Amino acid sequence: MSDRSSARARWARYRQQLIVVDHLGLRLDPSRMDLDEDVLDGYDAPMARALEAMVALEAGAVANPDENRRVGHYWLRAPERAPDTAIRQAVLDTRTRIAAFARDVHEGTIAPPTAPRFTDLLLIGIGGSALGPQLVADALGDPRRDRLAFHSFDNTDPDGMDRTLAALGDRLATTLTVVISKSGGTAETRNGMLTARAAFADAGHDFARHAVAITGDGSALDRVAVDDGWLARFPMWDWVGGRTSETAAVGLVPAALQGLDVHEMLRGAAACDAVTRRGTGDPRAWRRNPAAVLAAAWHHAIHARRTPTMVVLPYRDRLLLLSRYLQQLIMESIGKRHDRQGQEVEEGLAVYGNKGSTDQHAYVQQLRDGRGGFFTLFVESLVDATSGPPVGDGDGDAPAVYAGDHLRGFRLGTRAALDERGRHSLTLTIDRIDAYHLGVLIALHERAVGLYAELVDINAYHQPGVEAGKRAAKDVLTLQAKLLGALAEGPPRTADELAAAVGAADQAETAWQTLEALAANARVTRVSTEDGDPFGARYAGVHA
Amino acid sequence: MSDRSSARARWARYRQQLIVVDHLGLRLDPSRMDLDEDVLDGYDAPMARALEAMVALEAGAVANPDENRRVGHYWLRAPERAPDTAIRQAVLDTRTRIAAFARDVHEGTIAPPTAPRFTDLLLIGIGGSALGPQLVADALGDPRRDRLAFHSFDNTDPDGMDRTLAALGDRLATTLTVVISKSGGTAETRNGMLTARAAFADAGHDFARHAVAITGDGSALDRVAVDDGWLARFPMWDWVGGRTSETAAVGLVPAALQGLDVHEMLRGAAACDAVTRRGTGDPRAWRRNPAAVLAAAWHHAIHARRTPTMVVLPYRDRLLLLSRYLQQLIMESIGKRHDRQGQEVEEGLAVYGNKGSTDQHAYVQQLRDGRGGFFTLFVESLVDATSGPPVGDGDGDAPAVYAGDHLRGFRLGTRAALDERGRHSLTLTIDRIDAYHLGVLIALHERAVGLYAELVDINAYHQPGVEAGKRAAKDVLTLQAKLLGALAEGPPRTADELAAAVGAADQAETAWQTLEALAANARVTRVSTEDGDPFGARYAGVHA
Repeated sequence: MSDRSSARARWARYRQQLIVVDHLGLRLDPSRMDLDEDVLDGYDAPMARALEAMVALEAGAVANPDENRRVGHYWLRAPERAPDTAIRQAVLDTRTRIAAFARDVHEGTIAPPTAPRFTDLLLIGIGGSALGPQLVADALGDPRRDRLAFHSFDNTDPDGMDRTLAALGDRLATTLTVVISKSGGTAETRNGMLTARAAFADAGHDFARHAVAITGDGSALDRVAVDDGWLARFPMWDWVGGRTSETAAVGLVPAALQGLDVHEMLRGAAACDAVTRRGTGDPRAWRRNPAAVLAAAWHHAIHARRTPTMVVLPYRDRLLLLSRYLQQLIMESIGKRHDRQGQEVEEGLAVYGNKGSTDQHAYVQQLRDGRGGFFTLFVESLVDATSGPPVGDGDGDAPAVYAGDHLRGFRLGTRAALDERGRHSLTLTIDRIDAYHLGVLIALHERAVGLYAELVDINAYHQPGVEAGKRAAKDVLTLQAKLLGALAEGPPRTADELAAAVGAADQAETAWQTLEALAANARVTRVSTEDGDPFGARYAGVHA
Repeated sequence: MSDRSSARARWARYRQQLIVVDHLGLRLDPSRMDLDEDVLDGYDAPMARALEAMVALEAGAVANPDENRRVGHYWLRAPERAPDTAIRQAVLDTRTRIAAFARDVHEGTIAPPTAPRFTDLLLIGIGGSALGPQLVADALGDPRRDRLAFHSFDNTDPDGMDRTLAALGDRLATTLTVVISKSGGTAETRNGMLTARAAFADAGHDFARHAVAITGDGSALDRVAVDDGWLARFPMWDWVGGRTSETAAVGLVPAALQGLDVHEMLRGAAACDAVTRRGTGDPRAWRRNPAAVLAAAWHHAIHARRTPTMVVLPYRDRLLLLSRYLQQLIMESIGKRHDRQGQEVEEGLAVYGNKGSTDQHAYVQQLRDGRGGFFTLFVESLVDATSGPPVGDGDGDAPAVYAGDHLRGFRLGTRAALDERGRHSLTLTIDRIDAYHLGVLIALHERAVGLYAELVDINAYHQPGVEAGKRAAKDVLTLQAKLLGALAEGPPRTADELAAAVGAADQAETAWQTLEALAANARVTRVSTEDGDPFGARYAGVHA
């Protein structure tokens, strides 16, 4: 095919396959995924079944049987569709309470003990309890408008928490802390809460007067919040998974406190849900449903093309965290070992990326020239929130060119350069970056994940693979405790000797690594060997 | 093999393969990459050749023949090894000038026109001119100590730049701008400079009194800096590539201005270089050279195991940007289509990751249970810069447990959980996060990349695949200029008609996307069709 006829064929396919949903301010271009008509035909029947399964899920089926849970994040945007009135009422009540709480905080009706207003928000959470709030805070935040400035603890690194506290400095006195954990037992979040509480106490502040809990009813965190008289508690329900909780209190509370328009975010998500439910009647109707097309495109890329990696390139600084959000939503949902019949399938789609055009100067070299095995998701917003100054003009009297024109040029240029080498891409276009369109983007991907899971018959709503690491981590801390017990008495001993002494000879490697770290932090004394053999070092004594 | 004997075999292999370099404060554990003795034997001869090739490179060979350039980033840390005295003197003089300039800025000898001191630093650069400075600023910065607070423009998104300027607010009056571009022609950086200059002018400040250039001698940027009388200019040499420029002025100027210890960073890099040169005499000596072992481990993972993806998990908040830094350094260097003989090889290693234990709550589910095809690079620092409060204690009188113990527990737990499923990992341990050890980490990976490139016979120092995207982007802007010219006169026309009118009928798709974006930004008028067919829309008129 000549370049010219190839360009025309591409344009024809683009016009045929582009999905435009005007009232969502959303466009999806799958034309560069090379999905031929016969490929699409092959998805008609499976996608019809997948869409039917989503109907059952939304009607309250136990779609997460391993944990015996319903999957209800869609009800958060459409409480009238909840399977019972208790859920419906709980969603509505929670929304009302969140709005009232945020208003009270903004107006100073709820204020810190020593100042008229809260100024800063410290979110403490991890995984689904941090990634959504961080994405939204960064995408929509603005120092000129935010009611509270957003910060977070999302790890158990004491140095990282210390630095965040240092950045807050004296404003700790006017910082509102929101602790998010369904069970209250997540170690990182619990450690974050204890670290924040100690910092408030050290500065002479009453932590309870600065603290809000978002947690399961009756959880360990809930009990602390009740006992200590925290400012407020908001619910986490067992029918909302962490990675799909951005439109629950997890996402709404911090966003409302920051002063963002959570009503619009919910409205965008609800509108997208309405569109992405479509396609259950007509067997070909799914082809105009952007979530269904995403799911089919992923499936074809993963299973037919063997390109099980999606590089996410939003051409907007404000969407830098989108890749991390999608990384969790997609990888934790569909990265599964077994299907629902117990067959070993090792499913998954690797997701990574930062932002364009920045990443063009980082790794687009490899995407174009090097190893394949991936496709790209380009994301753009049509409207430049600001133009900035002109950065050049055309020849003669031509109108000015702006920085945003270059941004679009680089996106289209990179898409073309990848296409030329047979590297596929999807492009998502939203009209602008605001709460409504962020709600659309979130709901769109939630639905695509649900549909993909149906196509490959997996449970998208549990995470059994995370448990093994947690158990192993607990074993490490148990061993540390035993070693510290043994170190408190007796002569200096090697890691092998100490491991054997505590009945853990098989964990000598972990013992050695633990002892080396304790020694580096001056918590135990280390005696080196003369020849410097690191495994011959002896350890003794325990220091606070 | 029973669990017990398996644990013992693992511990034996760990002790045998662990590389400890005490004076670097560096350990590398390749034991979980499953590199058997015969695999290592197979690398003896190729690695000897690779190490010899690096000797030639360091001696001044034209290691980047496509661009006819020498590759001299190692001379930046050891100017006495530079191949001629002019380079040696230039490195030393530049170091001296950077130290003097930073001192003058800190002391207020060089000050903004309206205040006694600069308070903030705005770096404008992209790719290699941003990623290293951003990594170092984030890893070592601290609001309690920084002499200037670090900000950056690293894209051509007008909204992103606007937000950074808003965060600076009135402190623009005391902001020092450092513009970094070798040619001065990089559009993102040029647009960033023009945007910053306009913002300074709007606020009534003289940009030149706030501006520093780091650029090639005689470049377009250099000429602007000379003509306008900027505060200072520092060199970018053609023998230092962007992605290996952190120990050149690109990295040293912003770090020194922030108040970081650039001397220690250089000392760490030089010390690591000295260690990672080793192994040219004895054919097995490379096995104690951590960069050579990294390169061999990557090679085996990519070519023998077919796991061409490295997930980077530093268990420290301060190393969050390490994955982005390595992403560029590795993917742009080894993601190549052809080897040096012109054979098609499609080389590459995909690199992504954020930080542990945060990512355990995001995608470790998939790493453990789902699709394979990757290995993990764990990174830890032994010393907790602060302990934080105790977060629990053992049974009874056992000593306290700290947040950092959990961090280590999670790292070891995840490593074990992945290992259990046959998913391989490397672990890099540094003693602490400081300028010295960051210099070590950077030099280590630069050398590993160089050695890997020799193993597969590719040029690691060019980036031919980036050009196609730039050319295509330029075509988009050229087409936009033509369309705007055509729109200024004549009746409303469709994208097809306008494309044909400017002699670009084959670019109708790009024309349509451009026109839609211009219309969304109210720069042209769009007339919808009655039936809502998006491709039937007509465009006319040009608005400022």
